[in-house]
Amino acid sequence: MEPQTIKIRVRYSETDKMGVVHHSRYFSYFEVARIEYLRNLGVDYASLEKEGIYLAVLEAYCKYKAPAYFDDVLTVETCLTKLTAVQMELTYKVHREEEGQLLVEGSSTLACLDTHFRPHRIPEEVRKALGMEESEG
Amino acid sequence: MEPQTIKIRVRYSETDKMGVVHHSRYFSYFEVARIEYLRNLGVDYASLEKEGIYLAVLEAYCKYKAPAYFDDVLTVETCLTKLTAVQMELTYKVHREEEGQLLVEGSSTLACLDTHFRPHRIPEEVRKALGMEESEG
Amino acid sequence: MEPQTIKIRVRYSETDKMGVVHHSRYFSYFEVARIEYLRNLGVDYASLEKEGIYLAVLEAYCKYKAPAYFDDVLTVETCLTKLTAVQMELTYKVHREEEGQLLVEGSSTLACLDTHFRPHRIPEEVRKALGMEESEG
Amino acid sequence: MEPQTIKIRVRYSETDKMGVVHHSRYFSYFEVARIEYLRNLGVDYASLEKEGIYLAVLEAYCKYKAPAYFDDVLTVETCLTKLTAVQMELTYKVHREEEGQLLVEGSSTLACLDTHFRPHRIPEEVRKALGMEESEG
Repeated sequence: MEPQTIKIRVRYSETDKMGVVHHSRYFSYFEVARIEYLRNLGVDYASLEKEGIYLAVLEAYCKYKAPAYFDDVLTVETCLTKLTAVQMELTYKVHREEEGQLLVEGSSTLACLDTHFRPHRIPEEVRKALGMEESEG
Repeated sequence: MEPQTIKIRVRYSETDKMGVVHHSRYFSYFEVARIEYLRNLGVDYASLEKEGIYLAVLEAYCKYKAPAYFDDVLTVETCLTKLTAVQMELTYKVHREEEGQLLVEGSSTLACLDTHFRPHRIPEEVRKALGMEESEG
Repeated sequence: MEPQTIKIRVRYSETDKMGVVHHSRYFSYFEVARIEYLRNLGVDYASLEKEGIYLAVLEAYCKYKAPAYFDDVLTVETCLTKLTAVQMELTYKVHREEEGQLLVEGSSTLACLDTHFRPHRIPEEVRKALGMEESEG
Repeated sequence: MEPQTIKIRVRYSETDKMGVVHHSRYFSYFEVARIEYLRNLGVDYASLEKEGIYLAVLEAYCKYKAPAYFDDVLTVETCLTKLTAVQMELTYKVHREEEGQLLVEGSSTLACLDTHFRPHRIPEEVRKALGMEESEG
């Protein structure tokens, strides 16, 4: 699948006393990026949850190369890198828009769960939207 | 009712680029203090929610007098200042433990709600625990 | 001054177990709205801080009328309601964009401080941008 | 070095609409645990920053095995797993205290930086406190 890019402006409340974006905040940026990624492919995650389907984070990773500052406009590029019947992996690259510096790289593995937090097959319409062939997974 | 006091140590992630605790964080401190206040009176808020009773914030206020810093030990004094059949008001005072300086004062008004977010009478055992006479409210 | 409006989409990480936006989060929304309000009038708050001028929150208030949910698009209307030589007061109204319901109203009082957190006169260019006459304050 | 364990009670504001602790929150728990780990060995991180020495996160990882809920008491076990002249790696295990279930495992790599965010040798007293021999790193 094609990577997709969104923009996020750093909020004051996301900085810490080091004067930079707190490292934990990028996981929320990744989450925002992931939800927009799905939306752009026609998958409305809020509706999915209303139907009792959750995409829960199984693993999260982030590598910090340079700091982001208050009011910076960041681009977050999201790419689907793995898709099975019950899991997906996405990777993220965060750049500062102004000069294009790569600040952060990360990834997350998500598991599809039902309302009892049991593994659940990723719904067919989601798999199709994500470009998976019927025969796969 | 007697005021009650808890201690909270400021986390790094609660500071902002000004080098102080972000003003929005005190509302979470108040929430922690409120839940401990209830626990000390014999009300387990987590159980209350499991029974379908919510105490939702209707109003929140905070006045900032001096900054708190990373790693400061804060005392949060909680006092129940009003209690009716369906609402309660609590006030909070935050001091830095070290020299006792008053940093922040605040208050919150809570409404008792059911699972459909409709007003609900505060359960009898909660009202008793909070010291309200049967005849009141 | 004319009120100004921005849009914010509710992030997943901003919700709590009640299924709604946590009450403390609105203070960060207000902050985002305030900074955009200043930017639209030609005041770049990030630059102001680089010059050693801070606008610190002295008081914050919020009244909650109806919940906001994950993925809701919110409009935050900001209005400057008071301006003196060293302080300003802003008020905020948050609506859900979809049906226009008023969810939250709030206000904040800000004090202009120097790098030592001492009161400092609001810089002339900021007061002009905010529409204050030379003779006022 | 011996692992060390602290306790953290889950705050309401740390949960999300899935009813569990938001995955990004564990990185703040790790940070709290790391700072207590250092304190127990005689290293006061707040003082270190006042002297212009920062321990910045280079990499962060977390694996989620089971959810934590509001009001759960968690134990966070911290272990120093690597120490060089300029970096350290710590690993974390989060259990629910009540029945001892392992919920989350994670790690972080920290770089020692000066106030200009340039690599800086970990101060001798910190290396000693962490049990490193003079000849190492």
